[in-house]
Amino acid sequence: MKEGGRKPGALPPCAACKLIRRRCAPDCLFAPYFPADQPHKFASVHKVFGASNVNKMLQELPEEQRSDAVSSMVYEANARMRDPVYGCVGAISCLQQQVAVLQTQLALAQAELVHIRNSSSSTQPQSSSHHHNDTKSSSFFAIDNVTESLWSC
Amino acid sequence: MKEGGRKPGALPPCAACKLIRRRCAPDCLFAPYFPADQPHKFASVHKVFGASNVNKMLQELPEEQRSDAVSSMVYEANARMRDPVYGCVGAISCLQQQVAVLQTQLALAQAELVHIRNSSSSTQPQSSSHHHNDTKSSSFFAIDNVTESLWSC
Repeated sequence: MKEGGRKPGALPPCAACKLIRRRCAPDCLFAPYFPADQPHKFASVHKVFGASNVNKMLQELPEEQRSDAVSSMVYEANARMRDPVYGCVGAISCLQQQVAVLQTQLALAQAELVHIRNSSSSTQPQSSSHHHNDTKSSSFFAIDNVTESLWSC
Repeated sequence: MKEGGRKPGALPPCAACKLIRRRCAPDCLFAPYFPADQPHKFASVHKVFGASNVNKMLQELPEEQRSDAVSSMVYEANARMRDPVYGCVGAISCLQQQVAVLQTQLALAQAELVHIRNSSSSTQPQSSSHHHNDTKSSSFFAIDNVTESLWSC
């Protein structure tokens, strides 16, 4: 397990260069994102994407976006290691199910609200003064409009 | 742009072998999933994961899971091509936001239901016979229990 004939006292190579056994140059593209003390971070990214592809993808990005790109690649690679069939797409599918279930629950709750208001006004004509419910209704449904823009993200 | 010296009349190589310019053997691992008429499917997977990694990942899976694995890799690769910084993780983040917003909306709707029931029973003591609301309440909140198991997917 030689380490590229490193001189005594020289800085240790980054985790990426150490794994792929190449000299870690002072301007190494990997070094800022794959420090020597976090070898697993690069190991999973290398296994899934390959060092050469990671290098290419980072080179195509401006420096200020590389840290985020590395984080997302590490996340994606770890997901693929945990679930070799579906990877990240398994998480997306699960979240889409959660969204669908929550949308159903919300629709049911909204229907329940409408039903309670309708039944209380029809069975209790004496309580026709309770129009404050209508105000609440419009304030509640207004939430949909406020948050609708989030769905487009 | 030669095609590996293919004999006239021979079957065309699969999209993967054509792109990486190798002979497409009859037992080619890629051929069932990357047909010659869908070159873009392999192109994106190759650019993001690399043919060698895709080959290794498929070899490590039983045959019946390979089709799903290829679909998820194509999805993931296309997401990374569209969004080189966040890839699939961008979609996950967006869906997590949607889940959080829906959970807030649902909590508000549930609170509104409780509030309406409480205020109608406290301001209308004559309508104390309206205990059917309680039954509805428990049936509504029961939805949470039924669907709770989905959250663990």
